Amino acid sequence: MGKLLRVDMTTLKVKMEEAPSDFDTLGGRALSSHIIYSEVPPTCHPLSAENKLIFAPGLLAGSIAPNSGRISVGAKSPLTGGTKEANVGGTAGHKLGRLGIKAVILEGAAEKGACYVIKVTKDGTSVLPAPELAGLGNYATASTLAREHGEKAGILCTGPAGEMRLASATVAVTDPEGRPARHAARGGLGAVMGAKGVKAIVIDDTGTKPAEAKQKDAFHEVCKAFTKEVVERKFSVIVSKNGTLGGLSWVSKFGSLPTRNFQSGSFEGSNKIGSREVIEQNAERGGSFGHICMPGCVVRCSNVMHDKNGKYVTSGFEYESSAMLGANLGIDDLDIILEMEHRCDDLGLDTIEVGVALGVSADAGVFSFGDGPGALALLDEIAEGTALGRTLGQGTETTCRVFGISRVPTVKGQGVPAHEPRKEIGTGVSYATSPQGADHTGVIIFSADSVSEMIETSRLLQIKAVSMDTAGLCLFSEPNMDNITNLLNGFCGLTWTSDDLADQAKSVLKEEVAFNRAAGLGPETDRLPDFFTQEPLDQIHDELPPPEQRVFNVPESETRKILNF
Amino acid sequence: MGKLLRVDMTTLKVKMEEAPSDFDTLGGRALSSHIIYSEVPPTCHPLSAENKLIFAPGLLAGSIAPNSGRISVGAKSPLTGGTKEANVGGTAGHKLGRLGIKAVILEGAAEKGACYVIKVTKDGTSVLPAPELAGLGNYATASTLAREHGEKAGILCTGPAGEMRLASATVAVTDPEGRPARHAARGGLGAVMGAKGVKAIVIDDTGTKPAEAKQKDAFHEVCKAFTKEVVERKFSVIVSKNGTLGGLSWVSKFGSLPTRNFQSGSFEGSNKIGSREVIEQNAERGGSFGHICMPGCVVRCSNVMHDKNGKYVTSGFEYESSAMLGANLGIDDLDIILEMEHRCDDLGLDTIEVGVALGVSADAGVFSFGDGPGALALLDEIAEGTALGRTLGQGTETTCRVFGISRVPTVKGQGVPAHEPRKEIGTGVSYATSPQGADHTGVIIFSADSVSEMIETSRLLQIKAVSMDTAGLCLFSEPNMDNITNLLNGFCGLTWTSDDLADQAKSVLKEEVAFNRAAGLGPETDRLPDFFTQEPLDQIHDELPPPEQRVFNVPESETRKILNF
Repeated sequence: MGKLLRVDMTTLKVKMEEAPSDFDTLGGRALSSHIIYSEVPPTCHPLSAENKLIFAPGLLAGSIAPNSGRISVGAKSPLTGGTKEANVGGTAGHKLGRLGIKAVILEGAAEKGACYVIKVTKDGTSVLPAPELAGLGNYATASTLAREHGEKAGILCTGPAGEMRLASATVAVTDPEGRPARHAARGGLGAVMGAKGVKAIVIDDTGTKPAEAKQKDAFHEVCKAFTKEVVERKFSVIVSKNGTLGGLSWVSKFGSLPTRNFQSGSFEGSNKIGSREVIEQNAERGGSFGHICMPGCVVRCSNVMHDKNGKYVTSGFEYESSAMLGANLGIDDLDIILEMEHRCDDLGLDTIEVGVALGVSADAGVFSFGDGPGALALLDEIAEGTALGRTLGQGTETTCRVFGISRVPTVKGQGVPAHEPRKEIGTGVSYATSPQGADHTGVIIFSADSVSEMIETSRLLQIKAVSMDTAGLCLFSEPNMDNITNLLNGFCGLTWTSDDLADQAKSVLKEEVAFNRAAGLGPETDRLPDFFTQEPLDQIHDELPPPEQRVFNVPESETRKILNF
Repeated sequence: MGKLLRVDMTTLKVKMEEAPSDFDTLGGRALSSHIIYSEVPPTCHPLSAENKLIFAPGLLAGSIAPNSGRISVGAKSPLTGGTKEANVGGTAGHKLGRLGIKAVILEGAAEKGACYVIKVTKDGTSVLPAPELAGLGNYATASTLAREHGEKAGILCTGPAGEMRLASATVAVTDPEGRPARHAARGGLGAVMGAKGVKAIVIDDTGTKPAEAKQKDAFHEVCKAFTKEVVERKFSVIVSKNGTLGGLSWVSKFGSLPTRNFQSGSFEGSNKIGSREVIEQNAERGGSFGHICMPGCVVRCSNVMHDKNGKYVTSGFEYESSAMLGANLGIDDLDIILEMEHRCDDLGLDTIEVGVALGVSADAGVFSFGDGPGALALLDEIAEGTALGRTLGQGTETTCRVFGISRVPTVKGQGVPAHEPRKEIGTGVSYATSPQGADHTGVIIFSADSVSEMIETSRLLQIKAVSMDTAGLCLFSEPNMDNITNLLNGFCGLTWTSDDLADQAKSVLKEEVAFNRAAGLGPETDRLPDFFTQEPLDQIHDELPPPEQRVFNVPESETRKILNF
C-alpha cells in the first residue's frame, strides 16, 4: 500500500521502501506528523542534519475525488521549534499519488552551499547537482526546470529565502499552469529544505494512471455525490467568483481584520484591497477569478491577478496576504500589495509572517504604517540578506527580539494570521491551542455564544482540520466528517465510522503535542500573548462594546481542556 | 527583620514595607528567586511591565563577615525566558544591608524613553527624572551621579545596552573606588532595568551603622575564624596575586579553554592573554592585582588593568572575559581584548555573551577569527544600534537565529561560558541542569572519575552555590556548608544545621525549576546543544584521547536526576 521515498542528502543516496502496513491509513498530516514524532529527535536543531523534511500527499492523492490533491509538508519547525505541517494545493500531491508514493522524506544535509534537484519518475529517483539554480527566484527556478524536465512536471521548490535559511521561508508548489505561486508557507519549512541543500523536487508522473480505489464503484458514487454537494453549495459559488480576497471588506466591517500591527480590527482602506470592486478592477486589467490551484478542484477559489499595465502578477492572491501585507501595515494601495505578494512568491516568503514582522517593526521605527515604498524597501533588505532583512525574514519573534519589542503577536513563535482573536474569540482559542502555533487553516470561528461552545467548536474544527489534511481534501470543499469517512472508506477499502476518523485525528494531535513537549515546549506555550488579553481592540463601529468585551477573555484553564483527549 | 522597597515605575510611587516573617531566612538568590516565583507571571514578556527586577543583597549584607557583600539581581530573563539570578560584588550589597533593606523591587514600567534615577537613603527613597543620563555610558553615569550624590554612594546602573533592551545587557555596580566595572552580567537583566526606565539606583548609606548580629559574640568568633581560614588558604594567596586571569594559560593546557567558537579546547595564544607574564606586564604599565571589589573582601582577586600608555582600562578583568573575548575569538592581542572589555564595561554588555555571540558570527562570515579590529568594529555596531549590532547584542541564540546557524553554543538561550563541557564533563552537567542556563558561577568541575561522581558533585555544588548566593558570600571565599551555616546562625540568630541550609537551597532550586516550567521551558530544555555530544573536541596535546572521549557523553537520563530533590 504505497512507498516511502527516502533521500539522504548527506550521502545523496535514494531508498524506495514499502511503507509498513500501519501506514496504510496514514497520509498527509497524519503521516508527516507521525514521521516527525517517530523519527525526528525532538531536541535537534531544525536546520541540522537530524531534522527530516517530509512531503506527504493526502490519502486520496492520485484519485478522482474532487479537491483531493493537497499535500502536507512537515518537519520540526525553525519558526516554532515544534512540530509543523504546512498544507498546500498545486500539482505535486496528485502526481505523487499516481506514482504510488506516500511520502518523500529528505534526511541528512548536503554540504553548505550545495544545490540539488531531486527528480522523481515512475522509473526511479535521481539527485542532480544544480548549482545553476542557486539563488534563483521561484519563477526562474520553475521555468528553468520546466524547460529541462517538461512542462507537465510538478515542482516543489524553495526560493532564495529558503536558501538563506529564513524561518519565514516557504516551500512553493506549481499550479496546473506551472506557476510557483502556491506555498506551504507557514513555519519556515523552506529553510529546512534550504539547509538540506535541496532547491527543488521535480515530480514527473508520465506513464502513470489515476490511483485505483479499493471499492471502485462505491468510491465513484461517493465522489459523484460529494462533487454535486460541493458545486451546489452557495459558498463555492461565492468563492469561485471572489476568491478569498472578496471577503476582506466584510471582515473589516465585522471588526476582526488585523490593522496596523493589531491595533484595530477594521481598516478604513479595506474596500481598496479586498472587495467586489477589486475583483472587477482585476477583470478590467485582464486578470480573472475562478481558477483552480490543483487538478480536480471544483471550488475554484484561485485567481490570476494583473497589475495596472495588464501584466501577470500572481496566481494566488489570498485574503490572508492582502490582510497582512495591506491592512496590518496600513497600506491601501493594491498595486503595492500585489508587488509585495509577487516578491514574496518569488523569494519564497510566507506573506502572513512577513506582514506580521513588518507590522511589529513599526514599533522599532523601522517602518511607518501606510508607507508602501518603505515596505518594498524592507523586502529588498530581505532579498539582499542584510542583517535587517535577515531579522525580518526570520519572522515576528526574531524581529521583536532584535528590537527589544515586548508586544509580540505570535503563538509559539508563529505570527498571528488575519483573524483578530479579540473579536473572533473562538479563533483565538484555536490559535492558542493548536500544536502548530497561531494557524488559520480550518479553525476559524467567527462567533460563538459561550466559552464552552468556543472550546467545543475549536476542538471539533481542529479534529476536522487534521482529517481533511490527512485525506488531502481542500478545506474549501467543506466536507463533514461523514464525507471524509465515506471517501476514505471507498478509496482505501476501510469500514470506518466518522468516530474512527475522529479518533485518528485525535491521535495525530496527541503525537503533535507530545513532540512539542519533547522539544521543550511546555504546556504554558499554549497561549496567546498578553496584549490580546490586556489591550482592548479598536474597531470602526458606531458603538463599541465596553473594553472588557474587546479583549481575549477565555481563561487558560478552559483552553487547556481542548487537547485533553 | 528588614524591609522591602517597592518602586512602581508606572506610577513612580515608592512603598517601603516590612518584609513578612517567612522572609527572615531569605536573602540574595533565595529571596530574588522566591519573589520571581511568587510575584512574576511566568508567561509575561521579560520586557513588559509585569516583570519585576529585584535587587536582593545576601543575608549577611551590612555585617562584618568577610566577603559577604554580594548582591543578587533577579527577574524573568530576556535571554533565557526563565528565572534569572545574576550575582555581583561591589558596594551596593553592604549599603542596602546597613539600610536594613532586604530587597529593592522595581515593578511596572515608565513610559518609553523615560530615564529615572532612584535614590535610596536612610531618610527615604525618591524617584528622580534624569533625562540628562539617557544614553550615557556606565563610566559617565557613575561619575555624574557621584558628583551629584557624593563619592561614597553605591551605584547600580545600566548602560546604553540596557536602554537598548539588549539581552546581553548588564546591571553594573560600582566598586569601592566608584568604578562601574563590576557587573551582574548574565541573562540580560540590564534590559529589564532599561525597559522599566531606570538608569540607576543610588544608594547612600550615610548615617547608618554595620548591621548587628543576633548572636553578637558568637558571630564575631565565627567571622574571625572564617577570615583566618580564608586568608591562609593557598587559593586566596594565588588569586590575590594573579586574579582569575592568571589561570587562563593553565586552562588552555588542561584543554578546556573555549577557542575559536568552541572548535578547540586549547589556544596557542593563551600566554599572551592570561598568564603570569600578563600580570607582570600589567604591573610595568602601572596596573595592579590584589584589589577588592567590595568592602570586607579578604581574598582580593580583583585587579586594575592599564593599557600600554599606562592609562586605566578596567578594574575587573576576569578569566571569563579574556577567554571569551580572546581565545574564543582567536584574538591573542591583549590590548584589543582590554579595549573590548572597556567598551563592554561602559556599554554594559556581558563579556561572556558577547564573546560567544561574536564567535558564532564567524559562521556567518560576519567576523574572522583573530581579527581584533573587526571585533571592535562589531562592538561599534552594537553601540550604534544597527540591525547587526542589535542582533549580536541580543546574544548568541538570536545571532544564530538571524544568520541561520544551527551550531548554537547555549543552554536555555544563554551562551556557554569559558569551561569546555567536552573536557570538563562535570561542568557540562552543571550547564545542562542549572535552572539559570549555562552558568559558570560555583559549579565548575574540572574532573571527576565517574558519571555518578559528576552528577553528585554538580548537585552538591549547585546547592552550595545557592547557599553562598543566599548568604551573599563570594564563592572565592570558598566556604563549606558548615561555614555558611555558622555565619548565618550567628548573624540571623538561627539554629540551623548544614542540612537545613541545604534543604533551603534545594527549595530555591525547586522554585526556580518550577518557574521555568510555568514559563513554558519544559524539562527538555535542560540539556546541552547537540554539537557537544557529536563533534569531538580538539586540543593542543601530544596525544589526543579517542574521539568518543572528547565529546560530552553523559546521557540525559542521568543529568535529569540532579534536580529531583
